[in-house]
Amino acid sequence: MGYGVLTADQAGGFNYIGSGTIQTSKDLEPGKRLSIIRRDLDQLISEYVPDVLAIEALFFFKNAKTVISVAQARGVILETAACRELPVFEYTPMQVKLNLTGFGRADKQLVQVMIAELLCLPNIIKPDDASDALALAVCHARSASCKGEKPLSSAS
Amino acid sequence: MGYGVLTADQAGGFNYIGSGTIQTSKDLEPGKRLSIIRRDLDQLISEYVPDVLAIEALFFFKNAKTVISVAQARGVILETAACRELPVFEYTPMQVKLNLTGFGRADKQLVQVMIAELLCLPNIIKPDDASDALALAVCHARSASCKGEKPLSSAS
Repeated sequence: MGYGVLTADQAGGFNYIGSGTIQTSKDLEPGKRLSIIRRDLDQLISEYVPDVLAIEALFFFKNAKTVISVAQARGVILETAACRELPVFEYTPMQVKLNLTGFGRADKQLVQVMIAELLCLPNIIKPDDASDALALAVCHARSASCKGEKPLSSAS
Repeated sequence: MGYGVLTADQAGGFNYIGSGTIQTSKDLEPGKRLSIIRRDLDQLISEYVPDVLAIEALFFFKNAKTVISVAQARGVILETAACRELPVFEYTPMQVKLNLTGFGRADKQLVQVMIAELLCLPNIIKPDDASDALALAVCHARSASCKGEKPLSSAS
């Protein structure tokens, strides 16, 4: 699961704070993997003290197994955020792409280039999940309701 | 979300310990509802000190919204169980019905009557979710691996 943290100023500028992934081994049982996600997300919230959490809206996938395991992780993320009294905002991948590039079906790589430019980074952020999380954070920060906030975002 | 607790003896008999539901208001945000589920399940584990947790296996539903919210709650349940080092076992509704009645497509009411009989209760357990949870617990207790254990089960 990717995460990204940034600050947004009143003038529409951004400062990159951090990004990365929460990794869990596929060999572990689902409950144990979910426990690691909760523990690590809780640590990230303590470390970065974000004002809000932006998360990808989840829709029906073609693969039933995928939607169930993603939704299970999502449940743990929402619960952790609520436990830390962190407001949660959701955006669809199409909303994020539209916000970043002006085109809802934009190429993944174009979004990554836009993120690097907006955050004044010399290279695109890797891995993809971390870059996706920063894109969610930018999308939220550009919405009218959150000027000056520091969003933490997660993308899986 | 329903729950049920029982003990199983070596001779195949059962003792009813308790059952009920974890209730969350539909007016609350998803994260807050999930936090209540985690808190209440954690309290139930402290109160009953079960040996295992049996949970309904989740499959693709027709309704996308249902499968996502049920899977989110399931993620929190699995995480809570892992956090308390409680082993988790999964059974499909068909496995439970087959185990209880000998017929995988048995009527819900027949399962409820069987549960009341097996647990020597004067009436069927209400609400349905609590009775379903006890049926899951009986199904698990009858599996070869768990004689003498005290299962806590949940059904939504």
